[in-house]
Amino acid sequence: MSTHQHIIGILGGMGPAATADFYTKLVALAPGPTDQDHPKVVIWADPTVPDRTLALTENGPDPTPWLLRGAQVLREEGATVLAIPCNTAHAFLPPIASQLGAPVVHMIDQVARHIRDMSPHVTHVGLLATTGTLRAKLYQHWLSEYGITVLVPEPEVQSQLVMPAIRAVKGGDRGAAVTNNLARSARHLVEHGAQVVVAGCTEIPLGLPAAAAPCRLIDPATVLARTLLAQTTVDRVAEDVPT
Amino acid sequence: MSTHQHIIGILGGMGPAATADFYTKLVALAPGPTDQDHPKVVIWADPTVPDRTLALTENGPDPTPWLLRGAQVLREEGATVLAIPCNTAHAFLPPIASQLGAPVVHMIDQVARHIRDMSPHVTHVGLLATTGTLRAKLYQHWLSEYGITVLVPEPEVQSQLVMPAIRAVKGGDRGAAVTNNLARSARHLVEHGAQVVVAGCTEIPLGLPAAAAPCRLIDPATVLARTLLAQTTVDRVAEDVPT
Repeated sequence: MSTHQHIIGILGGMGPAATADFYTKLVALAPGPTDQDHPKVVIWADPTVPDRTLALTENGPDPTPWLLRGAQVLREEGATVLAIPCNTAHAFLPPIASQLGAPVVHMIDQVARHIRDMSPHVTHVGLLATTGTLRAKLYQHWLSEYGITVLVPEPEVQSQLVMPAIRAVKGGDRGAAVTNNLARSARHLVEHGAQVVVAGCTEIPLGLPAAAAPCRLIDPATVLARTLLAQTTVDRVAEDVPT
Repeated sequence: MSTHQHIIGILGGMGPAATADFYTKLVALAPGPTDQDHPKVVIWADPTVPDRTLALTENGPDPTPWLLRGAQVLREEGATVLAIPCNTAHAFLPPIASQLGAPVVHMIDQVARHIRDMSPHVTHVGLLATTGTLRAKLYQHWLSEYGITVLVPEPEVQSQLVMPAIRAVKGGDRGAAVTNNLARSARHLVEHGAQVVVAGCTEIPLGLPAAAAPCRLIDPATVLARTLLAQTTVDRVAEDVPT
């Protein structure tokens, strides 16, 4: 077995359905017809990590020790690059980034770069996300780097449509009412000037399929999967060059 | 963090799409509305493990060292129970079972028990699987324990319909031609007396959705997921009793 290959470490379980969806996308986007063409992946899915939104909005238990433990598990197993398919968890990264022991492909930074590269005409982006992600101003921070303004739902839309839909998906419900709530929330953002909408919680694309969205919807999990595959493939090719 | 809880270790990557599908089913079948109700899961997905069918049928490289290494990784991360969502890989287990260091929930044994429990009238079961699984007589062995006869496709059906469909799914193709090949193969088994058909390769349910099957189709990944959840939930409850 080669020891020079990349191993993608996925810090998951936040939530489990979003992790499964992210891994499914990573597999579907990987090039090549046989098993052996895919990257090595190790996943740590500990769903007991405290709720990230409650920690940010209601002084709930801090998930940081769980993130550090998960990164340690992945690193011990040889992960050379880490990915966290949970938007809200990114709020806890800055103070611990240097302790993770492997580079993190930052999902929100990658989404910001993706939107910047899409078109110079995109100046206003809508955001559907947990209240924790909105308050942590994650997308606001990373998109402002490229001069892009983030529009968030009015508080009653956030509390009565967006958060209930996210909780429903976590509970396994992807029915028409959930899709309708999320589609209405996206429409609300478009009416306020959003040119595209970021599905900024990994549960949202599960509840709002692209075909049901009233606008262009950006799925951070897909952006993250493509970036991971591009980075690890480039490095694989580089390693193959004789030195 | 509790150290007494079960951690489900998934020895995956055989193939990656089947692993992602299995994890998705495990998450969907887990009870409870919040992330924190789900079991802890660690997944090792090394798609470079040599092709199991080639090892069994054409003297290809032995995947055993990869299986041992994967089990070691999972055990080091605290896995208390192992699952291998690849039928063919089970052919390599008997000589190494004692070296894995944690109990394996044996997917094929569980499918045999599931069929036995379904109805005493099921005496003939069709098998769609890789040529490696057919030759290793895995289902034949475990189902004969319950007096059930296994029917396999004629060689030309196996080589011209079943294996090409499995390879197509591994390559990301789940189109109508793949589904049609698998549905024809299932019909062939029913015409020869199969009362139900086991989708005995984890790629087959991906290519042949239950709705497109001409008969009752048993998905070993679903059986394995239910067994794992039942075992780890029972033990969790038992641990909660004060002693």
